[in-house]
Amino acid sequence: MHARSYNFGAGPAALPGPVLDRIAEDLAGARDDGPSMLEASHRSDAFGAVAERAEAGLRDVMGIPDHYRVLFLQGGATLQFSAVPLNLTSEGSIVDHVVTGVWSRRAADEAARFCRVNIAADGSAGGYAAIPDPDSWALTPDAAYVAYTPNETINGVEFSFIPDTGLVPLVADMSSSVLSRPIDVSRFGLIYAGAQKNLGIAGLTIVIVRDDLIGSPRPGTPTILDYGSMAAAGSMLNTPPTFAWYVAALVIDWVRAEGGVAAMAERNEAQKDRLYTAIDASEMYENRVDPSCRSWMNVPFQVAGEAAEAFLDEATGAGLLGLRGHRSLGGMRASLYNAMPDEGVDALVDFMAGFEQRRRAGAGEAAAR
Amino acid sequence: MHARSYNFGAGPAALPGPVLDRIAEDLAGARDDGPSMLEASHRSDAFGAVAERAEAGLRDVMGIPDHYRVLFLQGGATLQFSAVPLNLTSEGSIVDHVVTGVWSRRAADEAARFCRVNIAADGSAGGYAAIPDPDSWALTPDAAYVAYTPNETINGVEFSFIPDTGLVPLVADMSSSVLSRPIDVSRFGLIYAGAQKNLGIAGLTIVIVRDDLIGSPRPGTPTILDYGSMAAAGSMLNTPPTFAWYVAALVIDWVRAEGGVAAMAERNEAQKDRLYTAIDASEMYENRVDPSCRSWMNVPFQVAGEAAEAFLDEATGAGLLGLRGHRSLGGMRASLYNAMPDEGVDALVDFMAGFEQRRRAGAGEAAAR
Repeated sequence: MHARSYNFGAGPAALPGPVLDRIAEDLAGARDDGPSMLEASHRSDAFGAVAERAEAGLRDVMGIPDHYRVLFLQGGATLQFSAVPLNLTSEGSIVDHVVTGVWSRRAADEAARFCRVNIAADGSAGGYAAIPDPDSWALTPDAAYVAYTPNETINGVEFSFIPDTGLVPLVADMSSSVLSRPIDVSRFGLIYAGAQKNLGIAGLTIVIVRDDLIGSPRPGTPTILDYGSMAAAGSMLNTPPTFAWYVAALVIDWVRAEGGVAAMAERNEAQKDRLYTAIDASEMYENRVDPSCRSWMNVPFQVAGEAAEAFLDEATGAGLLGLRGHRSLGGMRASLYNAMPDEGVDALVDFMAGFEQRRRAGAGEAAAR
Repeated sequence: MHARSYNFGAGPAALPGPVLDRIAEDLAGARDDGPSMLEASHRSDAFGAVAERAEAGLRDVMGIPDHYRVLFLQGGATLQFSAVPLNLTSEGSIVDHVVTGVWSRRAADEAARFCRVNIAADGSAGGYAAIPDPDSWALTPDAAYVAYTPNETINGVEFSFIPDTGLVPLVADMSSSVLSRPIDVSRFGLIYAGAQKNLGIAGLTIVIVRDDLIGSPRPGTPTILDYGSMAAAGSMLNTPPTFAWYVAALVIDWVRAEGGVAAMAERNEAQKDRLYTAIDASEMYENRVDPSCRSWMNVPFQVAGEAAEAFLDEATGAGLLGLRGHRSLGGMRASLYNAMPDEGVDALVDFMAGFEQRRRAGAGEAAAR
């Protein structure tokens, strides 16, 4: 038996405890006070207040300038792989993609269905273990934009810097890194993020886009994917994902109450340091990513000696959940999103040390026989 | 003070009481047993079981034949206005649209961005108060499909029959009528429905599509909108709206426990009869829709004598919520989806009679002065 469990899943991921408590409270009180947020109309005053609070809170916590629009959409980051080129390119446009893992690769592949794609850099030759040196990137001077993925959830590779693309708009898929540390939004043309890691539950996608980039979608763009139409309708061109939007408002409230993204960054940095240090010090675990670009959010690691399944079984028994690595890489992956408490990382590091010790003792006994 | 409130909103709409209870229970128990359905990975065994139960339950309750695929998607019915022509037409295709209200009009307008649209019938001349006689429809013999909207939530117009389109596939937006009465799915090529009325919460869209109609999307179709790719991936080409999918599973369980769609139809028919009878018998309220095609789900009505705002204020005070009509029509609208208990309709009818009596008494006093 374990006191409590910790969810290291890569997404949909753990919500902060106070957010879960608040959702439960709101649902319990709802029937007396009117419809719950599961049932409230998107045109109701109650939901309107939630929607406004979410946007105002996100603008505050991320420091989003006034000349950026914030959209609350559906379809996940993968639908944005299509929506971004449909909105930001025209006939004959070329776009630059920096490929540093599975997700930036997929974004580039989807963009190629709508415009010419130049792979400005590709980390695949090195097994996505490092970010290619920006000095080596083959950028196109008149590209419609440069797209990259600041954090790769599967490969565990993260940018510690914002690329300098001059006047060419920078587009970032921040699904797994939004709100994890302070960023300068004014350096970006467009940011998108699925909510199910650091912003709440699956089914909501945030788009933050500079005013001047919207309003000229490609012919044949589905209306729902047209940022200009969605911005004009306050993200309510049709029924929005109301409950997911409400959960995002609660998560943003929680980030602010905890001290904002600076406080998140401090906690996240300490947590990942603790875990990478433990991995590097052990003889059983290995993370193959270059230390200069190791992810703060997703820590993939291998377990030596064919002990992966035993590791997963025992970890689950100890209440450490969701550690199985992505099927394309195998091994383990510990996701340390904002909602992960320090105690969860402590419990994981302690478990890993104990597991290694037990396996070594077992191996010693077997050798002595 | 009122004992409890009833939500007559057109969607997002009321959930069945037992479904709300079950959600609250599941959330309360979750932290001891592992991640809640707000946080569970779409790749987890727990969510996999939910997803399978939702599909199996829907197939059972609607009698969906094996050669139809059931997809659980994002984006709302409005995104399907684009996805349907992108998947079911080719270069040069013509599609027929039967226009009987605001939503079928919007579907036709969006389709026209992707293919040639023939408006086979248009009820707008009559103010959408009736469904044009099928004998008068100008159908195209080799149309890619015929699209219609069995129930119009704004105009309160509903088909009591399934149009006969011969070999041309029939496409229906059942957002507001799915599960409200038995239908023969084999008569349709494709059915789509936003979940936020009879299937749960906003953020989930169901597509039921005949096998032979998928797999040949138009060039430039965003991958997320390609039914074939989504079907091959079990609706998990990317992270699905897990929580909304889970709520749909609970709602489908509830429909089955209540006796299936036949039981829903019996209750829905009795409820709408009670309300239309009250409206027709009064001198204060009016529903202008032809009795042969009055909606079971959405009952719009006017309040005579500029009493609309007073009606809304007093209704809200009596716990009768969400009655304001759509802004394009004014007046009132009472939505009687599956989750509406008989007591809610009784309370509304009683309130309406009382309001009419009080206004008449007031007018009588004023005249006597």
